[in-house]
Amino acid sequence: MSKRFLLAPDSFKESATAKDIADAMEKGILKVFPDASITKVPMADGGEGTVQSLIDATDGQLIEKEVHGPLGNKVKATYGILGDNETAVIEMASAIGLHLVAKEERDPFKTTTYGTGELIKDCLDRGIKKIIIGIGGSATNDGGAGMAKALGVKFLDSNHNELNAGGKSLIDLDSIELSNLHPGIDQCKIVVASDVSNPLTGKEGASAVFGPQKGATNDMVQDLDKSLSHYAGIIESDLHVNIDDVPGSGAAGGLGAGLLTFTNATLDSGIDIVIEHTKLEEKLKNIDYCFTGEGQIDYQTKFGKTPFGVMRVAKYTDPETKVIALAGTVGKDVDELYKEGFNGIFSITPGASTIDELLETTLFNVERTTEAICRVLK
Amino acid sequence: MSKRFLLAPDSFKESATAKDIADAMEKGILKVFPDASITKVPMADGGEGTVQSLIDATDGQLIEKEVHGPLGNKVKATYGILGDNETAVIEMASAIGLHLVAKEERDPFKTTTYGTGELIKDCLDRGIKKIIIGIGGSATNDGGAGMAKALGVKFLDSNHNELNAGGKSLIDLDSIELSNLHPGIDQCKIVVASDVSNPLTGKEGASAVFGPQKGATNDMVQDLDKSLSHYAGIIESDLHVNIDDVPGSGAAGGLGAGLLTFTNATLDSGIDIVIEHTKLEEKLKNIDYCFTGEGQIDYQTKFGKTPFGVMRVAKYTDPETKVIALAGTVGKDVDELYKEGFNGIFSITPGASTIDELLETTLFNVERTTEAICRVLK
Repeated sequence: MSKRFLLAPDSFKESATAKDIADAMEKGILKVFPDASITKVPMADGGEGTVQSLIDATDGQLIEKEVHGPLGNKVKATYGILGDNETAVIEMASAIGLHLVAKEERDPFKTTTYGTGELIKDCLDRGIKKIIIGIGGSATNDGGAGMAKALGVKFLDSNHNELNAGGKSLIDLDSIELSNLHPGIDQCKIVVASDVSNPLTGKEGASAVFGPQKGATNDMVQDLDKSLSHYAGIIESDLHVNIDDVPGSGAAGGLGAGLLTFTNATLDSGIDIVIEHTKLEEKLKNIDYCFTGEGQIDYQTKFGKTPFGVMRVAKYTDPETKVIALAGTVGKDVDELYKEGFNGIFSITPGASTIDELLETTLFNVERTTEAICRVLK
Repeated sequence: MSKRFLLAPDSFKESATAKDIADAMEKGILKVFPDASITKVPMADGGEGTVQSLIDATDGQLIEKEVHGPLGNKVKATYGILGDNETAVIEMASAIGLHLVAKEERDPFKTTTYGTGELIKDCLDRGIKKIIIGIGGSATNDGGAGMAKALGVKFLDSNHNELNAGGKSLIDLDSIELSNLHPGIDQCKIVVASDVSNPLTGKEGASAVFGPQKGATNDMVQDLDKSLSHYAGIIESDLHVNIDDVPGSGAAGGLGAGLLTFTNATLDSGIDIVIEHTKLEEKLKNIDYCFTGEGQIDYQTKFGKTPFGVMRVAKYTDPETKVIALAGTVGKDVDELYKEGFNGIFSITPGASTIDELLETTLFNVERTTEAICRVLK
């Protein structure tokens, strides 16, 4: 009987999409098992590549939309609508990512999540019933106020003027006005893909932990933390929502808090969301060999990374399924991963090489290594 | 039933001996199959590492001997006596290798194979019945005259004076005198491990093809070729041996010719000699998995390299034995090797790395990769 393979890699960062990796694996397999049954499920873990993977896995479509970037400039952002036409997937970095701001212009006092709100609004206008939001790599520290403003929320100072954009001005927040909130928001479930459990404020909060990488000095971190604390206080007094200590509210400069407050949102692990929407578990039934992979695999892969999530589902579905992982770099202590259930972890690197050389030859090396493994399996 | 493994790698050049590699493979296997039956046969192909491998495989001993180096200086050379106490193995590079001469001192007019002759003499004095000589990497171009002189042969000019050492002076050769030739030479079989089929002289001869890398200019190549041609002429007239066109006589600056003329020598492929003396074929009976390897594996591995020789014997002994090769670098067109019978070719490189980093981590990477393969096999 022909062997049944399921290919569920993540993308290899800066080198190849999950779909390209799966295609390369397929080529390697077919060289050894020409009659193999092969199912490809390009994966992601809620971070970069999640939109593309869910589009690829569900035959969805990519939507392009001009929105406001982190500093209010116009940017071309994209998001995905899945094959069911009811679910959208947004990577917040697309509109407001740190990569969109030159290093010398990074200023978390001013950066706003408004652009992500515009994408959510676009989804609501289309009647989307569920939005998956991958948060990570944001340039912002505004508690999600910009996002909420794009959905119709008014943040007013004591003179009933709307606040300026950015985390700093939240210190002047006096009241929150919800009367213009987008009517679609109640009918839409939002799932935030986040593996971050930080609260909104304090030592482990958004400003202290993530502020510096967004350009905040020590003094700025203090100011931003005060602003977000004040913001949480007004949310509590005006809306009777206690958000400050909720784990995950500090994700993406407090966008977590904003989504939990103003939308119908829940938090979930990124890889679990992707596993659910790709129907991975169902597809893993009666599979002999499951190949997964990521640019780097090491003991940290245990903490919410794609290959680990794929392995767990595969072994849960059928303990006999062999799970083999490929990586550009196999790092420290992969013994930890074997203990958890992996059946093989291989580097695709062919010999002494620079990162640049490797990034250019990823697909060939994935194909070659997959072929070698299949030949051993034959 | 426990799995039966045979481990027959070559050394990984500049990094680890064949024995060390086999030990690392063993560690990787035992992590997955604690009750595996494992036979280790450190291999070589007649080049660097051949002495060590045959000593390791036969429980032989290493002999150290002070002899004359390529330019007549004293060097500490080594050779091996195998476990049978009747067979010796000499790497000519040990006494007269190119690596013993600084680049600016390289002068094939003067370099001599005398030191290799001294090692052969030492073997004869001990009553050794068979000498394997691995030739390769020599600094010499003297047609093996130096080697023969160390064994008692006299090379005389027209005034009956002995010639100076080196390839240039052979142009003055007038007669060859064998009366003092070592009496043990007739009782000793010499096997030259060489994959070189070049004749002694001419366009494909020793001087033209190998002279330049030993420091010969174009003019010197002409002179050396004339010297060797004259030398071959005297050998023919005095000893009635036609050596000039014999394939392999041009190996190692004509040492091949010297050995074929003055000793009881035959030429054989290096890997075949090692296979014979390690009794590899016998050991490959009833083996499930044969692991081999070398620092670099690519399509050229077909041409007399260790992994290819090992694979051929393994498949000949039992087509069901799976042959898996590891390499520091997996190079071009390994498809060619799969066509010939390999069941898996894997790089041990874990990710982007410099050569120096890799050379320091070879054993760990061999162990890790072997373990991964075994886990897939389990």
